[in-house]
Amino acid sequence: MSITVVGSVAFDTVETPAGRNDEGLGGAATFFSLAASNFAPVNLVGVVGEDFPDRHVALLESKGINLEGLERAPGRTFRWTGKYHENMNDRDTIETQLNVFEHFHPKLPESAKDAPFLFLGNIHPSLQLEVLEQAHPRFTGLDTMNLWINIALDDLKQVLKRVDVLIINDSEVALLTGETNLVKGAREIKKLGPRIVVVKKGEHGCLLFSESGIFSAPAYPLEEVVDPTGAGDTFAGGFIGHLAKSEKPDDAALRRAVVYGSVAASFTCEKFGPDRLSEITRADIDKRFAEFQRLASF
Amino acid sequence: MSITVVGSVAFDTVETPAGRNDEGLGGAATFFSLAASNFAPVNLVGVVGEDFPDRHVALLESKGINLEGLERAPGRTFRWTGKYHENMNDRDTIETQLNVFEHFHPKLPESAKDAPFLFLGNIHPSLQLEVLEQAHPRFTGLDTMNLWINIALDDLKQVLKRVDVLIINDSEVALLTGETNLVKGAREIKKLGPRIVVVKKGEHGCLLFSESGIFSAPAYPLEEVVDPTGAGDTFAGGFIGHLAKSEKPDDAALRRAVVYGSVAASFTCEKFGPDRLSEITRADIDKRFAEFQRLASF
Repeated sequence: MSITVVGSVAFDTVETPAGRNDEGLGGAATFFSLAASNFAPVNLVGVVGEDFPDRHVALLESKGINLEGLERAPGRTFRWTGKYHENMNDRDTIETQLNVFEHFHPKLPESAKDAPFLFLGNIHPSLQLEVLEQAHPRFTGLDTMNLWINIALDDLKQVLKRVDVLIINDSEVALLTGETNLVKGAREIKKLGPRIVVVKKGEHGCLLFSESGIFSAPAYPLEEVVDPTGAGDTFAGGFIGHLAKSEKPDDAALRRAVVYGSVAASFTCEKFGPDRLSEITRADIDKRFAEFQRLASF
Repeated sequence: MSITVVGSVAFDTVETPAGRNDEGLGGAATFFSLAASNFAPVNLVGVVGEDFPDRHVALLESKGINLEGLERAPGRTFRWTGKYHENMNDRDTIETQLNVFEHFHPKLPESAKDAPFLFLGNIHPSLQLEVLEQAHPRFTGLDTMNLWINIALDDLKQVLKRVDVLIINDSEVALLTGETNLVKGAREIKKLGPRIVVVKKGEHGCLLFSESGIFSAPAYPLEEVVDPTGAGDTFAGGFIGHLAKSEKPDDAALRRAVVYGSVAASFTCEKFGPDRLSEITRADIDKRFAEFQRLASF
């Protein structure tokens, strides 16, 4: 079944202990789409400026990603500049240029409206609500961030009522619920709407709180992390991607979806931007999925 | 097969966000023995003062722990006072009174010398070497801490050459090897001697680096942590305990040992000191082991 994702398409300038990448292809919708396209057809909804090069369009199209919903607006593409700390877990945002994203209102083409799976990437909750008004998915996933929890909580709560799964990191759980204990925090989030909560813990893996219990997924023990930018969006792409390909999103499918998300995210960290994610095939994903099975079995 | 453990027996005064416990039974050898006694016969080697009450002796003996090697010296028992931060991961040592531990030199009774499994609890590496001179185990486990890495590295390296497994936490890996990446750090530790390395990551579970690859074990998602004191020693007790009960310490046994260690440690966190660990039975352990299987399977 097909997936629609709405989110940023960007140029990222990133400095990590492993090096520097200037104005590389980035954005949540980019990473999500590249990951999910290994599993199911993807419709990308977003906006770029006049400076967005044909080679990036060609890359996305080469993965079968439908760009009918990728608006090209007058002006410059969204830009983000960040610098990672030595530990690769913390990062500082050096600069954010909204550019064409400042006046963006998502317009879903018919093909995107009808997709059974919808993923609301990390954009202002009021825009996420605009998407929900246009689409009629069977299953909806949501990402958000500390900024929206701080400045747009009412809108965010409206969105939360209407999604099936929230994918969130551990510090955001505490910010959203006031609970540092993840079990309690996930329970509070479920009261806000989502019946499934996935908590990402970076190098420590992630926790799935479904209707059937808790699943703890390991992270892939990478020896070299080059650039974690987009790993969370990649995770979401692998996760929703596997669900869209499954018969039904039951507990078994959700557990495997979490692992497929982790598999995809591990590739993203291996090179700058989506460089590694762009070159892998489904066979690479399946091989690493088997490695996860060995990693976690006892 | 039987196990000998050498380490501290103490009175702990602990303050956590959940409350306060004054002069409770503590010490690495105590937690280790209580956990391991669920799996195999344990010989405890350590020292207490004249103030050590009969009820603590009775508790340990009720678990079948052999106290022939528990010396009673003139003076007061070792005391530790600590306070945990709100996150329960960090703690400050308020006071350490070595007391009878100051002049302690482990003397192994014959029964302890012959045990096929030996665990060197977290004491000065020069004392660990004294133990190794007296014992002739088939399999030796080691714990250490940042203090010994900082002030007794040469002695510690002598010990490392002679043990099978080092159980260590993630920050100690970085201190010992200079590597923040755990895969690389574990490889460096193996060069120092141990063929097996277990890295504890607290609430994030632990990683086993055996000769056959890497195993990632989840932590039990506890809703209430009352007191994590002794959780690491409890882990070691469950881990070595299961190995001592296994046919051979192969990769499958090591993986299950890591989970048994995690199971035991999860109980310790539920009450102050060894209060919860003292009341559980093998049936409780097996029930939670099954919960770990559901937690990690996909």
